[in-house]
Formats: sequence, structure tokens, C-alpha cells
Amino acid sequence: MNFDEAGVIAALTRIFGVTHRGVSIGIGDDAAVVTTNDQTVITTDMAVEGTHFSTKWSSAFDIGRKVTAANLADVYAMGGSPKYVVAAVTLTGQETLEWIEELAEGIAHEAASCGAFVVGGDLTKGPCIVVSLTAIGDIEKPITRSGAQVGDSIYISSLPGWSAAGLSLIEKDLDDDLALHAVSEFCAPTVDYVSAVQFSNNRAHSMCDVSDALIIQAEQLARASNVSFVINKDLIAKHPEYETLKELADSQMIDVWQWIFAGGEDHVFLATGIGLDGFCIGTVVAGSGVVGAEMKKAPDTWRHFN
Amino acid sequence: MNFDEAGVIAALTRIFGVTHRGVSIGIGDDAAVVTTNDQTVITTDMAVEGTHFSTKWSSAFDIGRKVTAANLADVYAMGGSPKYVVAAVTLTGQETLEWIEELAEGIAHEAASCGAFVVGGDLTKGPCIVVSLTAIGDIEKPITRSGAQVGDSIYISSLPGWSAAGLSLIEKDLDDDLALHAVSEFCAPTVDYVSAVQFSNNRAHSMCDVSDALIIQAEQLARASNVSFVINKDLIAKHPEYETLKELADSQMIDVWQWIFAGGEDHVFLATGIGLDGFCIGTVVAGSGVVGAEMKKAPDTWRHFN
Repeated sequence: MNFDEAGVIAALTRIFGVTHRGVSIGIGDDAAVVTTNDQTVITTDMAVEGTHFSTKWSSAFDIGRKVTAANLADVYAMGGSPKYVVAAVTLTGQETLEWIEELAEGIAHEAASCGAFVVGGDLTKGPCIVVSLTAIGDIEKPITRSGAQVGDSIYISSLPGWSAAGLSLIEKDLDDDLALHAVSEFCAPTVDYVSAVQFSNNRAHSMCDVSDALIIQAEQLARASNVSFVINKDLIAKHPEYETLKELADSQMIDVWQWIFAGGEDHVFLATGIGLDGFCIGTVVAGSGVVGAEMKKAPDTWRHFN
Repeated sequence: MNFDEAGVIAALTRIFGVTHRGVSIGIGDDAAVVTTNDQTVITTDMAVEGTHFSTKWSSAFDIGRKVTAANLADVYAMGGSPKYVVAAVTLTGQETLEWIEELAEGIAHEAASCGAFVVGGDLTKGPCIVVSLTAIGDIEKPITRSGAQVGDSIYISSLPGWSAAGLSLIEKDLDDDLALHAVSEFCAPTVDYVSAVQFSNNRAHSMCDVSDALIIQAEQLARASNVSFVINKDLIAKHPEYETLKELADSQMIDVWQWIFAGGEDHVFLATGIGLDGFCIGTVVAGSGVVGAEMKKAPDTWRHFN
């Protein structure tokens, strides 16, 4: 054991112990007590060493950011605003106190970027590192997966695929700027939370975040809404980042569409509606399923059941 | 892999998919949306295979019940009422669908015993089973750890030690009723949630649940309240269950006080106040620390930091 429990608790209390007017009781009691409105949005998302991250590739700060981003994106994807986070963490006992502090700082940093605070948690010991977060937020008008309507346009907040690209490249030790950017996005994605707020303000009819793969999420929206999603690759190819991503894919002899359609974990927001402030990639029509997009191999991820 | 993802999701949706008037959006979207009041209590608690439970000793149903009880007890220990639970679970892929269903049923059963419902979750793959829950509830008047006052009496809701006894006995394969009862309490404790509500209604000054050890939790209350807890072993020895627990300890040549003082995971509620409806074990006086209780060996548990 490279650290003592008391030292860890003290460090976490210091890192997470931000006073905030919504928090009546924070870290240090049996549970936190916070201010909430009539409607609250709740989501949970866990990341497991070896499955979602490797300490070989990612800093503790990035691991903290990544799992927090996954939770915050789910709150925004419903049209909510995250306010509070609780963190349950399994450690192996081989971590240094510094590593644990960096993990906590990554969680706190990503949460703070959305105005959310860590209000409690749990620490346990186990054979591998597991970070399980729950994010809770305010919500007035939920935007579900089932609201897509025939005639809607389909929008993305940014181009998915950078995280998948990073995963492909991470073991190749490339040092050009594009590859480094992709690897960085894999280790901890830059999530465009503001776009989700804009989609929400634009009264999007349906929305979700792309955590598994663009195709998988599009299929989920289409099925939940009883419509068909027609995705237009020519439109996607006009995205300002498409040529850069394609250049990177070509250099690795990889089909860029595999990254774009099967890549997840960028937490790009996928929404439908009329005249949304995003990048249009297709149209909602009568029918079922997704047309115009394919992936050679589905990503090996487990699905949320919330 | 003994099951397919789609089968698991379908089973979980069936088991957890209880409609409830507080749940606007349950399982099946990016996040759940629920009705809340002005003040909400939040807690998280995770259980790891090999640390908190073993599939060799405990049924999936009991594992689900145990981790859920730990979360619900934290909500009650603040004076709150649990309403919603989200569950993040890591599986190894070696479990059967039946085992997973039983785990989910254990979680749902314990939650429902308190009027709470599972509204979402996450499933991941990893090298061991991890069950991480977050419970959310209503709260009007939080009862903190820091409210103990000089002159208060100290109360427990029931006698702690049964779970610790079960842990001592589980590998001995005893088949008398007492031993079986202890083992059953270790696998999934019977938590007296109603006592916490009574302590709350009696306007307890301070309260927590005993998840680590009676001594550890008493020390936490004493420190948070800047007082001293004087625990009277003669009073504890008058508890209706004391003689039975002592008989079991004696039969194993174990000091019963080690189970009582160092045993955790029964989730007995420890409270202070005047004339509470519980079992009195001592008095709060000026000073610091805990007097009158000792343990030979502290339990090897990690502490909550919420």
C-alpha cells in the first residue's frame, strides 16, 4: 500500500470540498444534502481499468476527466444541467497518493467546467481500478430519444471519430500533431457541452450523446421514435474536420468512415429538429432503421441500460 | 460469455422497469428524470467481489440486497427517505443470465422494501464483479454527525455484531440456527430502517449508520460534534440479543465485544438525543473520543468519504 486511508480522505476532502450554495451538507457525513428543483435528471456511468482506460496510456487526471465527461454528457443529452456528482472508486492499493489526487482533480475539473461539484463518494479496494460516477442535475423540459419527427433534420455537435482514431493510434507512438490530438481525445474527450444547451434551447425534438457509436445511437433514436434516419455521407464529408480526420485515417490505411460511424466515446451530441444550431448530416423520414451509414465492425462496448 | 447483452438489458428493463408516479423518464434514455423536492439526499456505495462479497458464499440476490442496503441505510441515517436508485455494475462475462437477474432482483427487492425504485444504470465488463449504487431521496430536516450534545443519551437501533459473526463463521460450515442466522446477516443484513425513521421523528440530535464498526462510527460522531461518547458495556450486555450473540462467540472462543465494537456492515443506526425510541448504550459528555469501548483489531474496511 503506497498511501494511508486517512491521507487519501484528507486529500479528497480538500480537492472536492468546494463550498457551493446548493450544497447544504457535502463530504463528511453519511450522505450529501443538496438543493434540487421539481425535476431532477440522474445518470450513472462507470469506467473499468483494462476495459475503458489503461494507466499505461492515460494520466489519472485524464481518466478522471473521461468518466466525468461521460456522465455530464448524459445529463446534457437529456436537456439538463449537471449540478452534483458522487464518485465511487475502487483502488488496488498500488496507486500513489499523487495519482489518486490527480484522479480526483480530473473529476473535479471536468465537473467544474459544467458548474457541477463532487458532493460525496466511496472508496473501496479491489483487483483493478474502477471509477463509478453518478451525476445529478436540474431539468425543465426533457429531450428524449423518442421525439424525432418525420421531416426533422439530423444534427451532430461535432465530428465523431477522434476518440476511435486515438484508440487506433495509441500504441503506435506517433508524434505528429494530428495523431497526438486524436490520442488526447481518446484519453479524455473535449465535449462540446454548449452545443447540447443550444440544441435544447433550439427545441430539439430528440437528442442523445454518442457514447457507443454514431450508428448505434442513430438506430436507438430511430427505433425509440418509430422513424427512419437517413444519413448523408456527402454532408458529413463537408464537416470542417472531415479532411483532417480522413488524412489521419488514410495515413494509417484505415477507412475514415469506420472511425466516424463506429467510433464512440467522443460524446458528440446527436439531435433532430428544425433549424438547430449544429452540423446537419441527414433527414428523418417515415420507416425504420438507419440508411446511408454502415460500419464494418461494431465497437466492443457494453450498453447503458438507463 | 454466458449471455448476450441484449438479453441482459431486456431482463434488467423488465426487473427494474416498474412504473412509479415520481419517475417521468426511467430506463431506456440517456438519463432518468424524476420528481424531487427542495432538498435531496444523495449517497453512493460500491461493493467489490473479493473485498465485500464472494460469489462462493453469497447468492446474487443477497449481494444485490447487501449493497442496496448499504446505500439505503445512508439515506435513512441522514433522516431522509430513499426514492430512486441507479446501479452501475461490472460483470466478468462468466455470469449466467439467471445470476444477473437474481442480482437485479436483490437490488430491486431491497429498494422496494423502502419504497425506492431503480431508475437507471450502466453495465461494463471487467476482471471482477463490482456493484456501485447511488441512492437519492427526499429529506426535510437532515440529522448530521455533528449535532450530538452534552447530556444526550446514545442509542442503537439493534445490536451490531451479527454480520461480523457471520464473516467469522462462514468458512466453518456450521449448521446450527444461530450460526446460520449470523451467516445470513453477513450475506445480506436485515436493516431496521424503521428505527432510523423513529430516531428522526424523535428529533435525534445526531445519527449515522454503523457500516465500519460501532467504535469507528462513535468516534466520528464524537469528533464531528466536539464531545465525548461514554459507552457502557453493562447497558449493551442487557440488550435482548446480547446473550445469544455471546453464546455464539463463546462457542467459537471469540470475544463477543470484538464482534459488537469492531463489527460493521449490520447498518445498525447509532443516534444521540433525549428519550429516543431505541436501545440506550451510553451518554454524551464534554471532552473528546470514545470511552468504555475497545476493539483488539480494527476492521479492514475502507471508509466513505461522503
